[in-house]
Amino acid sequence: MNKKPISAVVVANGLFPTHPIPLSVLREAKYIVCCDGAANDFISNFGIPDAIVGDCDSISPENKIRFQDRLYPDPDQYTNDLTKAVNFCISRGIKDIIIIGATGKREDHTLGNISLLAEYQLRVSVIMITDYGRFTPIHGETTFESTPGQQVSIFCIDSEPITLTGLKYPLENALLTNWWQGTLNESLGREFTVSTQGRVIVFQAF
Amino acid sequence: MNKKPISAVVVANGLFPTHPIPLSVLREAKYIVCCDGAANDFISNFGIPDAIVGDCDSISPENKIRFQDRLYPDPDQYTNDLTKAVNFCISRGIKDIIIIGATGKREDHTLGNISLLAEYQLRVSVIMITDYGRFTPIHGETTFESTPGQQVSIFCIDSEPITLTGLKYPLENALLTNWWQGTLNESLGREFTVSTQGRVIVFQAF
Repeated sequence: MNKKPISAVVVANGLFPTHPIPLSVLREAKYIVCCDGAANDFISNFGIPDAIVGDCDSISPENKIRFQDRLYPDPDQYTNDLTKAVNFCISRGIKDIIIIGATGKREDHTLGNISLLAEYQLRVSVIMITDYGRFTPIHGETTFESTPGQQVSIFCIDSEPITLTGLKYPLENALLTNWWQGTLNESLGREFTVSTQGRVIVFQAF
Repeated sequence: MNKKPISAVVVANGLFPTHPIPLSVLREAKYIVCCDGAANDFISNFGIPDAIVGDCDSISPENKIRFQDRLYPDPDQYTNDLTKAVNFCISRGIKDIIIIGATGKREDHTLGNISLLAEYQLRVSVIMITDYGRFTPIHGETTFESTPGQQVSIFCIDSEPITLTGLKYPLENALLTNWWQGTLNESLGREFTVSTQGRVIVFQAF
């Protein structure tokens, strides 16, 4: 009973990753939670998740029976499957979550999933890894490890001034009033710093 | 000299569409402006654009020579290729723009391109069509044609109260404080209305 995992990879309902970085994250995962809508494809193409969470209306009747020991239905109509999977992880004492496969299909789902990171970070350590890079939600001053020339984009969820140092286009207490305004920046060295009182999501390209 | 087109399709640097709706928009286009970074693929797979706009550092040497009569380099480092293409259209007197191929690769580019619609709408009538649906930027009260059951998501760029009618989850003067909060709504009938003083981007799924 002391074998509870403290980290997990959550596989969401977007496109299954093809890039080696998210694939290696999946291969090395100690505990994999699969969103309901992603379960059939995941099982066919990758393996058996440790838990399947969601409405459980998308999983095939065969998989529903075969994996009933790891099926955790959550009928809440006001949260999406990704949030159900994150809530499940938190309820199991998981402290670190990596989200995979959360982008690349319907763009409104992509936007929703990325922005949900800003909610999750208030309760758990979380990042999202896609085929193109890594999203990290922060709140307060944060220094990121980087490489010179790494492409960086900053998305402010709250309307709070932001200061960027160590980037090609630094900012000092600037208010970004649209999403594109923080995109297409570039790291100058081995680290950069983002300071703000608001919730921010940082994208670092591979 | 009076043959200036008044509408155009702009092909951006994201994934080339595969869905029949954006493909038919392309086939029926009277005037196609291709972003520099999309030009080689577009020419190989679809046809010859009427104009190629951008840094012009991504187009192949062969295409650069072959299509020099329709190449419009714009070296501005502070705008991306999509904005350069939109600016080009506006400078040519174009009144209506449909943007295609602007999503599906790097997610920070996708977010940037979608949010730029809120800027473009102040100067020209513009929509974006993807493989999954249609993004329309608005400002002020707008009624949308719809079908019962159509999936609708609303993204507020400005922090202004919003009222939604004709949707499964209506809102009255609500302040949405994160992108996901306006997602996964559903049209109840043949139209719905969005009222706000702020800039809003509305997604309607196919």
